[in-house]
Amino acid sequence: MDKPLILISNDDGIEAAGIHSLVDYVKEYGDVWVVAPDRPHSGQSSAMTVNQPLHISQKPDYNGAHMFSVSGTPVDCVKLAYHTILPRIPDLMLSGINHGSNAGNSIIYSGTMGAVMEATTIGIPAVGYSLLSHSPNADFSETERFIRHITSRVLRHGLPAGICLNVNFPADVKIEGMKVVRAATSHWTEEFQEYTDPHGHKFYWLKGRIINEEPEAEDTDLTWLDRGYATIVPARVNQNALDCLQSTADLLDL
Amino acid sequence: MDKPLILISNDDGIEAAGIHSLVDYVKEYGDVWVVAPDRPHSGQSSAMTVNQPLHISQKPDYNGAHMFSVSGTPVDCVKLAYHTILPRIPDLMLSGINHGSNAGNSIIYSGTMGAVMEATTIGIPAVGYSLLSHSPNADFSETERFIRHITSRVLRHGLPAGICLNVNFPADVKIEGMKVVRAATSHWTEEFQEYTDPHGHKFYWLKGRIINEEPEAEDTDLTWLDRGYATIVPARVNQNALDCLQSTADLLDL
Repeated sequence: MDKPLILISNDDGIEAAGIHSLVDYVKEYGDVWVVAPDRPHSGQSSAMTVNQPLHISQKPDYNGAHMFSVSGTPVDCVKLAYHTILPRIPDLMLSGINHGSNAGNSIIYSGTMGAVMEATTIGIPAVGYSLLSHSPNADFSETERFIRHITSRVLRHGLPAGICLNVNFPADVKIEGMKVVRAATSHWTEEFQEYTDPHGHKFYWLKGRIINEEPEAEDTDLTWLDRGYATIVPARVNQNALDCLQSTADLLDL
Repeated sequence: MDKPLILISNDDGIEAAGIHSLVDYVKEYGDVWVVAPDRPHSGQSSAMTVNQPLHISQKPDYNGAHMFSVSGTPVDCVKLAYHTILPRIPDLMLSGINHGSNAGNSIIYSGTMGAVMEATTIGIPAVGYSLLSHSPNADFSETERFIRHITSRVLRHGLPAGICLNVNFPADVKIEGMKVVRAATSHWTEEFQEYTDPHGHKFYWLKGRIINEEPEAEDTDLTWLDRGYATIVPARVNQNALDCLQSTADLLDL
């Protein structure tokens, strides 16, 4: 019987340390194919490329994994992998390990999770992994045993239709354990830095940090990451607010 | 008392016909500020610009509305409007009128709805409007009475926290009425067109069309758009799958 086919992508690009660590940690579970952006695409959410052509480049294998880069977004990578690159439908899709947090409401903007949600839409069980460090030299070793545990369980049992997992790891600490929790209600303080160019025109650069709107809550990812735990958030791709159909009709006098 | 402040954005860019029609239809309800991308950003989802500076350009007023373009994505427009451009917090945010459908699962990829979800995250009631025609010369006139109805009601009553509206209109027909429905479960057939460049290298261009996975369902947007109705889908920004917390813990032996 064939080994399971595992597709790996990310949003930091095919040269990021995190994607190589992920290959190292999961290669024993299957036939690993990496299809990742040719450059960083942080903050790309579920963006896809509609007005430009896409190029695929095969790279030298890494630690037994087939390596392909795509001149597009994380979603483009999953779409092209599925339709053009892979020899068959993947049994599992993994994204990351992202350099930086995707906890709280960061899932909205995350290219790492954009790739995961694209795979989920296609019907492939998918998990995103992120470490709370933006360093290109981040130490991922503490995450290995958790990634191996989660990956092997999801490969064996699958996930419910339309549900994916968003896994975040604290950085620079001994990880205490894993918690299945919800994402904290949060938002970014989008404090733009303002500059003036040599011609006297202003320009702006996004900075900002995440604000936990419920710091006292005991059941959120931001709370448990602060306590040194890996957090696992089951997320639903479908955003239908079924409980609001009637109230919306009432509000609109329909 | 001040008139309500209405922020308008889109993903087709500040020169699109749809955004001008939207200004025309809602200007009587408030003080309208348009902050839109300086070029088309279809398929940009909730992408934001993290690795480049952003520029803001004030344009000539249009039909009484203040007009600003931003060198970024729809989400960047909402963030910069909120933090830098607008004189105060908007009472309402509108996006569109998009040239093309955002029904079914297109909401995942939609820059129009990315802007709406960003406003919702900030706590501003927000509605996205889309017409099922990609023509730059699309006739939006049939949508006017529906947009005025929905806009005035949402301005008066607000929306539940974390909930936005995704409104789609059929094109080139007399619209029969409005239905509050859920988004149909659907996916895109991402049939890439394959080309060969003059140097013999292959490249790919995304095409594809949406597949309704439940064409018999009576309560979905794709069904009612087919029947000539405007559809209103209440969507939740937060993707927590609260009903899957325990099953996920079980699946992972936690």
